[in-house]
Order: sequence, then structure tokens, then C-alpha cells
Amino acid sequence: QMPRGNLETVHHRALVLAQLRQWLDSLRFRETFECMRKLRINLNLIYDHNPKVFLENVKTFVTQLDSINYINLFLTELKEEDTASTMYPRPESSCVQSQPAPGQKKVDVVCDSLRSAMESMDPNKFCLSILTAHVKKTVPELEVALQKVRKLRENPPAAPGAVTAEEALKYLLFLVNVNDLYEHSLGTYDFELVLMVAEKSQKDPKEYIPFLNMLKSLEPNYQRYTIDKHLKRYRKALHHLSKCGEEHFPEALKLVKEQKLYSEALRLYTANGAQYKALSCAYAEHLVEQQQAEQAGLLLWRCGETIRALQAFASSSSWRNAICVAQQIPLPPDQLALLARDLAEKLTEQRRYSEAALLLDQYAKDCEEAIVALVTGAVWDEALRLIYMHNRQDITETNLKPALTEAVGTQVVFLEAQVATFTRHRARLAVVREQKQKARLDMLDEDGPDCPDAELYSEASSVMTSSKYSQSNSRISSRSSKNRRKAERKKLSLKEGSPMEDRALMHALGEIITTVDKMREEVHNLLKALVLFQFDKQAEKLQVVYEEALQMMESAVPEVWPEGLPNNQAPLTGPNSTANSIMASFQQQKPAASQQDAEVLTPPKMRNGVKWKLTILK
Amino acid sequence: QMPRGNLETVHHRALVLAQLRQWLDSLRFRETFECMRKLRINLNLIYDHNPKVFLENVKTFVTQLDSINYINLFLTELKEEDTASTMYPRPESSCVQSQPAPGQKKVDVVCDSLRSAMESMDPNKFCLSILTAHVKKTVPELEVALQKVRKLRENPPAAPGAVTAEEALKYLLFLVNVNDLYEHSLGTYDFELVLMVAEKSQKDPKEYIPFLNMLKSLEPNYQRYTIDKHLKRYRKALHHLSKCGEEHFPEALKLVKEQKLYSEALRLYTANGAQYKALSCAYAEHLVEQQQAEQAGLLLWRCGETIRALQAFASSSSWRNAICVAQQIPLPPDQLALLARDLAEKLTEQRRYSEAALLLDQYAKDCEEAIVALVTGAVWDEALRLIYMHNRQDITETNLKPALTEAVGTQVVFLEAQVATFTRHRARLAVVREQKQKARLDMLDEDGPDCPDAELYSEASSVMTSSKYSQSNSRISSRSSKNRRKAERKKLSLKEGSPMEDRALMHALGEIITTVDKMREEVHNLLKALVLFQFDKQAEKLQVVYEEALQMMESAVPEVWPEGLPNNQAPLTGPNSTANSIMASFQQQKPAASQQDAEVLTPPKMRNGVKWKLTILK
Repeated sequence: QMPRGNLETVHHRALVLAQLRQWLDSLRFRETFECMRKLRINLNLIYDHNPKVFLENVKTFVTQLDSINYINLFLTELKEEDTASTMYPRPESSCVQSQPAPGQKKVDVVCDSLRSAMESMDPNKFCLSILTAHVKKTVPELEVALQKVRKLRENPPAAPGAVTAEEALKYLLFLVNVNDLYEHSLGTYDFELVLMVAEKSQKDPKEYIPFLNMLKSLEPNYQRYTIDKHLKRYRKALHHLSKCGEEHFPEALKLVKEQKLYSEALRLYTANGAQYKALSCAYAEHLVEQQQAEQAGLLLWRCGETIRALQAFASSSSWRNAICVAQQIPLPPDQLALLARDLAEKLTEQRRYSEAALLLDQYAKDCEEAIVALVTGAVWDEALRLIYMHNRQDITETNLKPALTEAVGTQVVFLEAQVATFTRHRARLAVVREQKQKARLDMLDEDGPDCPDAELYSEASSVMTSSKYSQSNSRISSRSSKNRRKAERKKLSLKEGSPMEDRALMHALGEIITTVDKMREEVHNLLKALVLFQFDKQAEKLQVVYEEALQMMESAVPEVWPEGLPNNQAPLTGPNSTANSIMASFQQQKPAASQQDAEVLTPPKMRNGVKWKLTILK
Repeated sequence: QMPRGNLETVHHRALVLAQLRQWLDSLRFRETFECMRKLRINLNLIYDHNPKVFLENVKTFVTQLDSINYINLFLTELKEEDTASTMYPRPESSCVQSQPAPGQKKVDVVCDSLRSAMESMDPNKFCLSILTAHVKKTVPELEVALQKVRKLRENPPAAPGAVTAEEALKYLLFLVNVNDLYEHSLGTYDFELVLMVAEKSQKDPKEYIPFLNMLKSLEPNYQRYTIDKHLKRYRKALHHLSKCGEEHFPEALKLVKEQKLYSEALRLYTANGAQYKALSCAYAEHLVEQQQAEQAGLLLWRCGETIRALQAFASSSSWRNAICVAQQIPLPPDQLALLARDLAEKLTEQRRYSEAALLLDQYAKDCEEAIVALVTGAVWDEALRLIYMHNRQDITETNLKPALTEAVGTQVVFLEAQVATFTRHRARLAVVREQKQKARLDMLDEDGPDCPDAELYSEASSVMTSSKYSQSNSRISSRSSKNRRKAERKKLSLKEGSPMEDRALMHALGEIITTVDKMREEVHNLLKALVLFQFDKQAEKLQVVYEEALQMMESAVPEVWPEGLPNNQAPLTGPNSTANSIMASFQQQKPAASQQDAEVLTPPKMRNGVKWKLTILK
């Protein structure tokens, strides 16, 4: 902002910037700096104009400026913003890479390179600028700065006019909030430094002297812990507390629980110790609350808390671990069987029939229940295995065969329903596409988007900036953008006439194909079981129905997902076409290109490599 | 083809066709027919002009023609071709549906509808036309025609001038090859009919009389079998032979094997009989030869051939069935254990470790080998289950733990390699895209495709039909189409500079993402096992490496698969753009749209729903 009424400072900015750029290119930093200061141009431009060149010439910069004040001014004005692209955009011809290495911040890069240049040139002379460079970093290096002040006091530099510790500290206090500086001085655990800062501050000695004395009286690790805790540096606090011996462990455990420093704590104590176990138990409790019972179980188990581990595993359906722990305890056989039954019940609820059957068979020793679970889950081959293993062929008649005939009926009905839905959607898709194509041609035939369907194709009009189209129809354009957002929301509605009905139909058709295709293994296994028990007729029926369904869907793919759909409609050219009409014909296909659409536009993969048909059924 | 020198028959075809269409529309079939005959216009047009109208007015057609000869002429000239779209294309204004119901053939539809019209009008009068309609069907109905002739002979029609059996047969022989007719008469198993045809034919009675006499002497089913076999109607032959009693079964089995009529044969014999068993065994042998040993096993097992079933199952790694059969036999324990070991070995080779372990544990009773198999397959939780089940914690130290630390190392190295390749491909992709974009702009800036990169974008020029572009560069255009075919072949080559290198890179990047994403479950299980055995450091390393890999890849997705890639480059418009230049800018993006590309253009789905991280590792 320019001060009002100061006319002599009014310059044509473009000319000024051109001059500055020229100076910067020829490394005339001093002129640049003074001009920028005078005309209140943001000093960041010195770096932003060409970061690489600046970094390579930091010493020249420092030498030319030759002023602690100037350098400090430059440092304090630094910010992340790239002024060469925001405030003072580069002329188009230049192509300077503006970003530093990824992950690095511009401010930090500049501070560090300036500081190391000054340190190598004359650390005493540039003392205050060096401190500024520490303080201005994204995460201010206050402790380093304080340490440097302390060094100044311990070894006052001999050079004439060198900055004293006093002056440096004063300067720091000018840059940084006094409380922040005090806290950070505490964080160095260096009481001399703390006192030095405290004295310079307006703090009441009655307040800080007793506190410092109390701290000084403590055992070093406990002292550091107390300071860290005071500064809310809980990780460091825990680290120091862990070195304070067993008698402080309850305090440590409390800190861990309060600050949820479980993982860190486990690293600080030796495994297999009592403290490690206590920490593990505390962590496990926390994990159970966080619905992470399985991980809680792992912690408990490995530190020998088997009973509690068992509970954790059982509650999280981590059945293998539960059973292992139970056998390690060891649980008496009847209780193990009960546990197995409980776990199996939960697994059955989750449709994990094979696992339930394993538990029932091997731990509850109830092969009948196990076989029933497998039959329920349509795991025919495993059911048969257990039947023969336990010589229970009777179950074949009572359970397996009836389940097989029921399953084949269910599958056939299911497939027929899928085929019916598919056929309906496919027919509707053809209708919708024809309508859209017609509406599209209608719109492009006309002079402007006055036809009722025009809003559907708002993309066409909304992107054209310099045509009579958008200029004369800005009202429609803004209206249609609202409509577009609306369309986005109900994008994939199957409701007849919804704007994206074609996409919704494609999505639904894709889902059906995926569902049906997924059944290959299941159908294959069912067919084999049916043949084994001489249910050839039913098996043939299923094979025919499934094959027809797959073939019908596969043959529909090129129709539903035509080759190159996004551009499938030939560009609308002809004697009457204009640049705009062609643009429009392309633009309206644009919605096809979004990420979500790309998925809808890709036909689902059919796993024709998975052979499911039986040769013996024809 | 018009006879030469016959000038009065030269008419202007368009005028004639217009007249014919008008007549057909007003159902003036007689005029139409005579005119078409005279001018040698294909008679199919009578139907093709408007199939629906013709079929609704078949009786009018017959009545107007009122000539057996004319109707026969029309029938004999019928063919599948739609002359209204091939020889005599419809004027654009009309929009007649030319296709009959799907699955039906035009010739059959016309024959059937004409025949049934004539039969309802006057079967005697139209006798010969009715026979023609039978004979002209896609699969000639010779037997039906022959039966009608026979009826004529048995009940000669009283009507004056009605066709006699004699005449009808003569006419049939004129339409159909005499040998065909003789064979088909045999196929009716009606010896009177056979004799009738034979007499009319030029066949030598010394030849057919003894054959017919021999046939007459046979038992009816065996007679029909003999005829069917003579006519190479093997299914029918088998059907009749199966009714001839046990003494003919060897002949049936031979026929089944020769003609591979196994499935049909099994339907003809009752299950559980000796013949059924023999057929099953024969079929099983055939299936084993066809690499379908599992299905062979099912057939053998269900008919009680357990030993052979076991062989079949074992040879096809159908281990559950093999074990079931083995226990049904029952195999002695030591042989069962051997079988289990053999099967387990095969499964291990196929990396099916869990199944191998089940066999070793439950049937070979060798829990140590089972656990080793599970450890080899990285099935940590199941390995642990068996360790505790059999109280073999010693294996934890000797096998499980060393395998865990090895696995974590392998995984980390693998992931780091994947990340490195990914990063390399990603960087290269950015370079390739920039080059292509630049080349694209260059091309569009210039007047013609003279720049060296133009061929890469041949799609742009090759589609424009009416611009100076393609007209002045046809040489380049044809050259580039050759190049395009070449590009198609090596489409997805990662070689630097290959025409589709960007696509190839996207493909490779997608593959890496899929591979890495697939590891979620594996990594999760490994992490849990590592934590359990206190390998927290290694687990943490793996967790960090895997998480970084996933994050890096996920964050790369929008860059590699930018939103709406096919149209991602803004259309090139501006003051100097023309309809053609805009077209070109779109057209060259067209290759993006093919089906294969659609897959490459869709970012792989990452299964972020699969939680793999452990909270306890940080």
C-alpha cells in the first residue's frame, strides 16, 4: 500500500520490475535492495526471481548489502509465498523453476544458506543476523540461538565493536516473545541460561527463583523430566522419567496413560520385565477401548498375560490366537470345547463357515455340527471330507443331498432374475442412448441452446468464452451450472429420465456381470457335488442357465461398452459446422471423462480363464 | 445378367423399382410378380420389400398368383439375403424393419407361412407347392414330404385334376437328389415308402431288395438301429440299440466309444446297473485322456469303481475327493498316510501350502511336516495353531522365528524395489507427456504435418476428409496408417521413445500398484506374527516401508491418471483456431478411447477398506 500524497514515489510498476529483474540477473543486489525498499516492493522477490541463482550467490548478496539491518530486514520479511508468481508474475518468456527441492521450505532454505554464509564470513560481525536466521525458521531454533548467546557471555569476542551477550539477548527478546524465550531456555536444562533470560525479562524473581531452586535440588533425570513436563514435552519427559528407577514407575505409568504414550513407553523398558508387563496391560486396556482387541491380545500374550489375552482374542473373533492361548494356559478340555463352540457361533454369524467347522470338528470334537456348518455354507467338498473322515455317511442323506437340491434351485432362480434385470437394463440403455443422440443432434442443428434439452449439454455452452453462444446466454449458462451440480448429486440414479440414466444403467449392468462372473467357482463346486450324487438333470439345468447367462452378458459387452465410448459419436462436421459447433459436439462428451465415469466406462472383466463347466454335462 | 441384344427389356431400373414398390404397397402381387419375372428382378424383393405386410397377406399373394408354377418359382428362388438392402436398396425415406424375429430364418418363415396358407386354402390343388415349401426349408423336411406322398397313394384325392402320388413323387425327384430321397425314405422306417422311392429311382433292385429284406427280418428296434447307423444318425441309432436288450450292449458300448456318445449313453441306461458302470468306466477313460481326470473320478466314484476313482482323483490333485474315496475303500492307515504325503507334495509344488499342511497333519499324522509347510507358505497363524495343538513350541524357535525375520527382510527389499521402479516410471511418464504435448502444439501451430513428430499424431490428419490437410498429404497419410498398425503391435512397449510409451508406463505403474495393494493381508498377518514374537523393530520397519509405498502410490494416482485424461488437454482454441485445427486437437486424443486403453486409463482400485496397519507400531 502506497502512502497517500507521496507522488514522487509513484512509478510505473512494470518498468520498475523490469529494472529489478535486470539488476538481479546481473547480481546487483545492493541497487535492487535499496530500490525495493524505497518503493516498498516485497523483498522476497530477490530470492523468488531466480532461487537457484540467489542460492549460488549468497555471499555476494551479503557482501553487497554489507548491513546487519538490511540483512535482518530481508530475513524478517521472508515468507513461503512465491512472489514471482503471485505479486509480481514473471514475464511469460522466462521459465525459472520456482520450487525448492520437495519437502523443503523456502524460508528454511534461505535462512540456512544465509546463516552458513555469514558464519563462514564473520560470525562476530553478523552475530545478530545469524540469530535472526535461527529465529525466523519455520520452527524457530530458539535453543540454538540461546546457546550462542551463552557462548558470547562465556567467551566475549575480542573484536572491536563485536556484539556482547547482553546486546544479543536484548535483540532476541526484541524478536521473540519473552515467555517463549524463557520456556525454551528452560528446555536447554541450562540454569545459567535460564537465569540470564529471566533477568532480562520483566519476570518477577520471586516467581522463578524458587522454581529454579526446586529444580536444581532434583536428581538430574528427574529434574529434566520435571522441566519437560512443565514444557508439555511429554515424550522427552517420559524418556527422562524412565531412567529414574523403579520407584518412579507409577508416575511413569500415569504419564503414559494420560498422554497415551504406550508405544513409546514399551520402547523404553526392557521386555519381559514387570514394568513392561504393566505397560502392556495398560496399553491393552486402551486398545480394547479402541476396538483393537486383537492387537491388545498380542501384547498381553507375549508378556504372559494369557487369561486376559484369551479374553481379548475371543472378543475379536481372532479364533486361532484364542485357541492357541487356551491351549497354552492350558484350558481343561471341556472349557476348550466350550470356547470353540462360542467362537464357531460367532464365525457362523459372519458366514465364515469353514473356520467354524474347523473349530467344531477339531476342538469341540463335534463333527456333526461341523458338517452341518459346512453344508450351510455350501462348502460341499469339505463337508464330504469330514463325512468320510468321521465315517458319517448318514449325514449325506439327511443333510447334504437335500441341501444340494435346494442350492441348485436357488442358484437357477437367482441367475434367471439376474438375466431378467440385465435384459431390462440393456434394452432401456439402448432407448436412452437413442434419445440422447437425437437430442444432441437437435441441439446442434439449431442456432442456440433454446431447445428444451440444451441444459443437459451445458458443458457445451459453458466453456466457450468468446462466442455469441455464451455471451448472449449468460443467464442460461449460470442456470445450467446449477443444474449440473444437481446432476452430479443424483448422477447414478436409475430413475427413468434422470440426467445420467445411461451411466446408471451401465453401472448396474456392470455390477450384474461382476456378480454373475464371481459365481464361477461356486457353480463349479456345486455341479461336481450334484454329479457325484447323480443329480445330473439338475446339474445340467444349472450349467445351461449359467452358461447362457455368461454368454448373454459377454455378448452384450460390446453393445453396452462400445469401443471408445467417450468419443464414440462421430464428430459433427459438415458444410454448416463452425468451430463452435464442433467444439460443442466434443464438449458435451466431456462428462464421460471423469474418474468415476472411467470406471463405469470400463467393461467389467470376465474371468474366462476360470473354467467352471463340466464336460460330462451336455 | 441381362441377355445381350434384347433391347426392349432395358428399362430404367430405378423407375421400375419405384413402380414395383408402389404395387407391393397396394398388394398388387400379380402385376408385381409378372413384371419382376419379365425383367428378371429377384423375386425375394416381394418379401423383402416389407416382410410384415407380406406375411399378413400371404393368402392374397397365393390367390392373386393363382399358379402352382408361379408359387414354386417364388419358393425356389428364396434365399436368406435381404435384397431390399443389398441388390435393391430402399430409398432413404422408408424405414421398414427387414429382419424377422431373431433366431428365425427368412426362408423358413416364408416357406412355413406360405405352406400353411395353401394347406388351409386347398391342400390338393396346391399339393406340389406344399411339397416345394417342405423341400426348400433350410433343413429340408424330406420325410414329411415323403409321408404326404404316401398318404396320396393310400387315399388318392377324389377331386378332379388332383395330383396323384405318382406325379408328386416325380416332382419330388425333380427337386431333390434321388439318393437323398432314398436315404430319407429309409429314415422313416417305412418300407412301403422306401420301395416307392426306390422304384421311381434308377436304382438297381438287385441292390436294394436284399438290403430291405435283411432289414425286414430284424427285430424292430434293432432294425431301426441298423437303418440309423446306415444313415449315420448315431444318436438315434444308440437310442434304438439301447432298447435291444443286454446281448446287444457290447455293440452299444462300441458305438458309444466310436462316436463319443458318452453323455447320451448314460442317459439311456439306468444308473447303478452293470451297463451304466461299464459306460461310466469307458467315459472315465476318455475323460482322463482329455485331461479331465477329476470328472472321470466323479463318474467312477458314483458307480462304485473306487480304486479307479482314487487314481483319477489323485492324478488331478483333487485331494479331498481322493482322501474320501480312500477312506471309503478303506485304505489301510499306512497307505492312507502315503497317499496323503503324495498329495501334499503335489500341493506344495502348486504353492497350496495350507491344503498340504491339512493332509500332512490329519492324514499323514505328521504335524512337524505340516507346520513346516505352513511356515514355508507364510501362513503364520495356522502354523502357530498347529504348534499349540500338538504342543510343539520347539518348532517356534527352530523354524517359525527364523522364517519370520527372513520374511520381513524379503518384503522390505521387495517393496523398496517396487517403489524404485514406480518412481522411475513416474518420472519418465512426466517427461514423455511433456514431449508429446510439445509435439502436439508444434504440429497444430504449423501449416501442415511437416514436423518430424507428425506421424505420431497421424490420427489427427487421417480422419479429416475435406480439409487441405489430408488432401495435400495423402502420401503421408497412407504412410502413417502403416505406422499406426506397427504402433498397435508394439503398443505397450516400455522402450524409451516407443510410440505408446506413455500408455506402457501407465500400464506398468498400474501393475505395480495392484501388486503392492494386494499385499495388505499378507503384510498384516506378518506384522501380527512379528509383534507376537517381539520383533517390534522389524515390524515397524516393514510398516513404515509399506505405508510409505502405499501413500506414495496413492498420491501419484491423480498425476498418472489425471481427471478425465482422454480430454485432459484443454481444447486448442484461440483467435487463430479453425474448425480443422480444433478437430485435430480432439482427434489426436482419440486413441485414448479404445477398450484396452480404457483399462490403462482407469487407475487401479486401491483397497483402502482393507485395514492392515497395527496401531501398536508407530
